[in-house]
Amino acid sequence: MKIVCSRSDLQKAIAISMRAVPVHTTMPILECIMIVAESDGIHFISNDTELGIETVVPGSIVEKGRVAIQARMLSDMIRKLPDNEVIISVDESKMVKVVCERANFQLAGLGGEDFTYLPVVEKEDFISISQYTLKDVIQKTIFSIAVNENNRVLSGELFRVRGDEFQVVSLDGHRISIRNTALKEVYSEKKVIVPGKTLSEISKILGDDAEENVNIYFAANHIVFEMKDTTIVSRLIDGEFFRIENMLSSDYETKIRVGRRELLAAIDRSTLFVRENDKKPIIFNVTDGYMQLSIDSQIGSMQEEIDVDKEGKDIMIGFNPRFMMDALRAIEEETVTLYLVNPKAPCFIRNDTEDYIYIILPVNFIR
Amino acid sequence: MKIVCSRSDLQKAIAISMRAVPVHTTMPILECIMIVAESDGIHFISNDTELGIETVVPGSIVEKGRVAIQARMLSDMIRKLPDNEVIISVDESKMVKVVCERANFQLAGLGGEDFTYLPVVEKEDFISISQYTLKDVIQKTIFSIAVNENNRVLSGELFRVRGDEFQVVSLDGHRISIRNTALKEVYSEKKVIVPGKTLSEISKILGDDAEENVNIYFAANHIVFEMKDTTIVSRLIDGEFFRIENMLSSDYETKIRVGRRELLAAIDRSTLFVRENDKKPIIFNVTDGYMQLSIDSQIGSMQEEIDVDKEGKDIMIGFNPRFMMDALRAIEEETVTLYLVNPKAPCFIRNDTEDYIYIILPVNFIR
Repeated sequence: MKIVCSRSDLQKAIAISMRAVPVHTTMPILECIMIVAESDGIHFISNDTELGIETVVPGSIVEKGRVAIQARMLSDMIRKLPDNEVIISVDESKMVKVVCERANFQLAGLGGEDFTYLPVVEKEDFISISQYTLKDVIQKTIFSIAVNENNRVLSGELFRVRGDEFQVVSLDGHRISIRNTALKEVYSEKKVIVPGKTLSEISKILGDDAEENVNIYFAANHIVFEMKDTTIVSRLIDGEFFRIENMLSSDYETKIRVGRRELLAAIDRSTLFVRENDKKPIIFNVTDGYMQLSIDSQIGSMQEEIDVDKEGKDIMIGFNPRFMMDALRAIEEETVTLYLVNPKAPCFIRNDTEDYIYIILPVNFIR
Repeated sequence: MKIVCSRSDLQKAIAISMRAVPVHTTMPILECIMIVAESDGIHFISNDTELGIETVVPGSIVEKGRVAIQARMLSDMIRKLPDNEVIISVDESKMVKVVCERANFQLAGLGGEDFTYLPVVEKEDFISISQYTLKDVIQKTIFSIAVNENNRVLSGELFRVRGDEFQVVSLDGHRISIRNTALKEVYSEKKVIVPGKTLSEISKILGDDAEENVNIYFAANHIVFEMKDTTIVSRLIDGEFFRIENMLSSDYETKIRVGRRELLAAIDRSTLFVRENDKKPIIFNVTDGYMQLSIDSQIGSMQEEIDVDKEGKDIMIGFNPRFMMDALRAIEEETVTLYLVNPKAPCFIRNDTEDYIYIILPVNFIR
């Protein structure tokens, strides 16, 4: 094998491939990027057995072939090279040569006979969505997936398609994050659970261009994300996601309109007195025209008043400040609306079109 | 005590004070900043018993007094406040109140009866130097102090004044870094060893303005750095520094002029194949007009040629690539000159005026 690529194209392809290279593994082949140079182009493939990525690299093939190279080593090497053409070649003993300007590297490659290529998935049932939108809804929900959870279902996000609506849901037992997005076409109903790890890696590969689309294919055990040069295949999580419909209610006793940044800054200040693993709630005391926030811990105490626009009953309710902050950070709008029922019922933060719904359970407190 | 300061002035003063607040300590008082508000102004004092800092904070004193506040807590609190006036007050029970706009914090302060104030040092023998220059010479020598060294002397830097020359030296047994700077006046001879930890912290406090000076006072057991609003006192290291005069020789058999960035980039590429704690040398093979760099390890090998301007004998010599890179990074000039004698003798990198001298011992290698 002998290929010639620009350093910048190699860097891009390696950065994408690395997303499916596990940091810790006992199988050396999983630490590799498989380079395949055949008549259909140069392909970089990586696969951690749950998530697999294949990306096409621009460049010319002097001699066809394939070789597996330790990914981190290849990444460091290309990064340290001057910005010029790079020649990667392999001889019959699988010795890899990398040449750029006057720099020459040699290192041992692997034949990759034990490499797991991407599974062949039936690409029938799909939706098309802008890369930017998918990235956005992942980033704005992924914080509330459960980590270190025995229930595998909670470690993933629900992807649901109903007509022209695409819904992404994550929940961890204390809160629920929901994003609803309109699709440009009407599709058949779909409902799968995608591993959080997959979504986290994909959100780093997806572009910021709203014009560039990604096709998402839904198969029995896999989901495929297909972009222009890159295909990502992930296993799905088996199981039934929680029926969130029952939890969604539009009843409320108190409705509060408040400046998002102002509320976020005040809650952030309250976290000063919350040590990790400490469950001290921040207490919202809402009366006409303003809300008093207060927190009281062994370390110290803090109170702050902010102006709000209130409809309905006065209420005093406690929350985990971190959960409240996560939701407020994921909202773009400058004014947010909180819907409350009583101090034991969840708080809903949503807009009228329900593009987003963040539900946060309150925390008991003693006064 | 009750003082009113701007948030930005508080942030600056806290950032400076934090440099003498130890990260790990069993004495709670060491984790504090002592705020002293007396007729001569508002002073923030911190002292880890080796290094002490006192800085003046602009602001108004409503009521005189003093209180010690947990430094990290104070720092986080001020950082999270809006950019406005901050009122810090203490009542008789040493309860601290911090108020900014509509945010109120309360936390327990300490009386600070066990606080160690800065030692009173005789300020007679001194030099004056630009803050920028001092920062620069520290940053360009500190990488070669010995860490985890039994010999305390090697964990510090030599500060030496001879007439109008200020010399800073560090060495770790494998290399020596020397910076010589001209002073604006002639001073009496001085020679002290300043702890590396002190210099590292001071270099972060010193400004980048070449016009702002720092006065350095030399006392029996202490060194004092006096700036406009901030005074820093450090203990000195007791002992005799190595006599580097004997090691300085201007004899050489080979003189090489080479592009600094080019050499640095090539050596950096070679480090790809050097694992931590691995002592693989990079080998310089210098002949007329060019130098071949090569490295050969269990992981892989690399060769590169770069153009050089050589005078004298051909030579093949090995170095620890990291030591060579540290020195090259500390030099500003675009072309550097290496002076070599033989493969067992140290390499000198210096300019004609000897503003800098970096000496690196070679590493044996087998070919």
